Amino acid sequence: MKFEILHTSSKSRARIGRIHTPHGIIDTPNFVGVGTNGTIKALDNQMVSQIGLQLMFCNTYHLLLQPGPDVVANAGGLHKFINRKLPIITDSGGFQVFSLAYGSVANELKSKGTKQQDGSVLKITEDGVLFRSYRDGQKVLLTPESSIAAQKSLGADIIIPFDELPPYHIATNKLQSSLDRTHRWEQRSLEAHLKNPQAQAMYAVIHGGVDKVMRKQSAETLTDLPFDGFAIGGSMGKTKPEMIDMLSYVLPFLPTTHPNHLLGIGDLESLGHCVPLGIDTFDSSYPTKAARHGLLLTGKGPIKLSRTSLKNDLGPIEPGCTCPTCQNYSLAYIHHLFKAKELTALTLTTIHNLHFMVKLMERYRTAILEGKI
Amino acid sequence: MKFEILHTSSKSRARIGRIHTPHGIIDTPNFVGVGTNGTIKALDNQMVSQIGLQLMFCNTYHLLLQPGPDVVANAGGLHKFINRKLPIITDSGGFQVFSLAYGSVANELKSKGTKQQDGSVLKITEDGVLFRSYRDGQKVLLTPESSIAAQKSLGADIIIPFDELPPYHIATNKLQSSLDRTHRWEQRSLEAHLKNPQAQAMYAVIHGGVDKVMRKQSAETLTDLPFDGFAIGGSMGKTKPEMIDMLSYVLPFLPTTHPNHLLGIGDLESLGHCVPLGIDTFDSSYPTKAARHGLLLTGKGPIKLSRTSLKNDLGPIEPGCTCPTCQNYSLAYIHHLFKAKELTALTLTTIHNLHFMVKLMERYRTAILEGKI
Repeated sequence: MKFEILHTSSKSRARIGRIHTPHGIIDTPNFVGVGTNGTIKALDNQMVSQIGLQLMFCNTYHLLLQPGPDVVANAGGLHKFINRKLPIITDSGGFQVFSLAYGSVANELKSKGTKQQDGSVLKITEDGVLFRSYRDGQKVLLTPESSIAAQKSLGADIIIPFDELPPYHIATNKLQSSLDRTHRWEQRSLEAHLKNPQAQAMYAVIHGGVDKVMRKQSAETLTDLPFDGFAIGGSMGKTKPEMIDMLSYVLPFLPTTHPNHLLGIGDLESLGHCVPLGIDTFDSSYPTKAARHGLLLTGKGPIKLSRTSLKNDLGPIEPGCTCPTCQNYSLAYIHHLFKAKELTALTLTTIHNLHFMVKLMERYRTAILEGKI
Repeated sequence: MKFEILHTSSKSRARIGRIHTPHGIIDTPNFVGVGTNGTIKALDNQMVSQIGLQLMFCNTYHLLLQPGPDVVANAGGLHKFINRKLPIITDSGGFQVFSLAYGSVANELKSKGTKQQDGSVLKITEDGVLFRSYRDGQKVLLTPESSIAAQKSLGADIIIPFDELPPYHIATNKLQSSLDRTHRWEQRSLEAHLKNPQAQAMYAVIHGGVDKVMRKQSAETLTDLPFDGFAIGGSMGKTKPEMIDMLSYVLPFLPTTHPNHLLGIGDLESLGHCVPLGIDTFDSSYPTKAARHGLLLTGKGPIKLSRTSLKNDLGPIEPGCTCPTCQNYSLAYIHHLFKAKELTALTLTTIHNLHFMVKLMERYRTAILEGKI
């Protein structure tokens, strides 16, 4: 992997770059679509590439349990298995198993601190996490080494070391222990990766929760290791201002020569705040999930597809939009399909929202180049 | 509409024809895909045309209740509303309202004669049927004239007169009354249509249930009227042999100069029996419904997509198949998506099954031409 910086803003930390991978270029800053099971929900991978999505995020946890890394390796790797010719990034599975163990941070915040456990995580040790597969009830041990082995079988262009996602409500001493172990796990992951690089790049994950001292410590520890890029993970607070504040604090500790990635955040408001901070890539299921719930993204704000006033709207979702949905169908028709609960509606809305994200990021890159950000 | 017969078999009543419509040609015999709400479930209309489906069946009952004929007319008709450039056929709504009144014939056969009513049909008179919309609870009166008015707003290439679908378990005298009223309704429909033909063609619907005398009477009554083609509707028995027997009996009463259509039947076995009987077009939701249930159609018989043995099958659904699914994806991947309950799986299987039907009908036409049927 090679990261090329084409332009850096004089107004902010925003920059335009190009990540060169074995499956082509990712222009940055860019949006990364989430294709958990090897597909963006409701789309097929040829359409995803036609839309121009340069990087797709697949989840090792899901693919590990089904179809299993052996099946994917037997098919010649994830690109061949899912027939995607453009770059793919996989995570380590850590996020999902720790969401099972602690409940997701989102749920934790909603339920004011109550940890939710469904009993599927059996044991957490220095070695890794033992959990029960939701697919077939089998016990699965996820360790830095087994996560990297799985990610080697998948063969994504960018991979991620095994880490712990600590709960939001955690005592400082426990967060410190979690962080120290995460660093040991990330180092073990890196060592496993470097034994057999396979032209994959590995991004570290900066942790430390809402504690600035630990975030700095995490950045300093991980940037001392030969990672190819740096992702930022874990909870950074309850609110967007808290997140922005933490990112503004952390990013200067990362080398500007390396690409960075913000894990799991890519809503429109966050993008607006984070592009000027110098974040290069963002993954989020927000635009595709919104599409399936009938929320259409446009430059003039979102459109609620169930609105009765759309019944006779013969225009496209967004005038001038070049996506296959807007090229072919009116809002009136898509509104009708959505109300009739036709699956086709979900495909058409997902195409539009994903295309919107691709074009939005193009506009961000242009704005940086033109000195507007 | 013009119907051109290119070749008639010397071995059977099978023939090859061409139905010329304002939106292009339908080669016969052919399969008609069911797009109830103006979409084939899980596909978009550009893909449907790319697959080569020449005729799509839309349901007036559904489109009447939502979005409503006014919305469709405001969009310039159904072709423009749904962006389909190829021919469309609509039915009268009679089938659906009488299924509400009597329960579907299929359910009636399963439940051994118990009629099922959900109370939504309020009154059946000589004028028509008053029912309550499942969408908004509004009372709707469907008459021959209102059905044709709706079908004029939709503007399909082929339309169907308002008819009664009598229950399977019905006394002979009641079947005769139903048939007589259906004939009066079809005549009223034809008159309403001929006041404003709009370049649409109208196919009569031959009824008479399982009674040969009445089927003959229906054929003779309706072929005396200036319909453009003849559809065969209603129950023809409990079993396929009973249906084949009735069709063999009825078809010779229809003019060979006009196209005919078998309503609601298009499974593979029935096609094999009915093409030699001279049926020109068949509509059925079978292949698309089968696709969504993971049953893949191939020349070597159906494949059950959930079969564990497909896990590592890197070949396409059917070797040599030119559908976009087989061109791009392996059985192993589609099996994985189906097991993971991804919507994408339903789109990919529907593409294949619909394409299979299009190619199957091409093979039937070739076989007739080569004197094999």
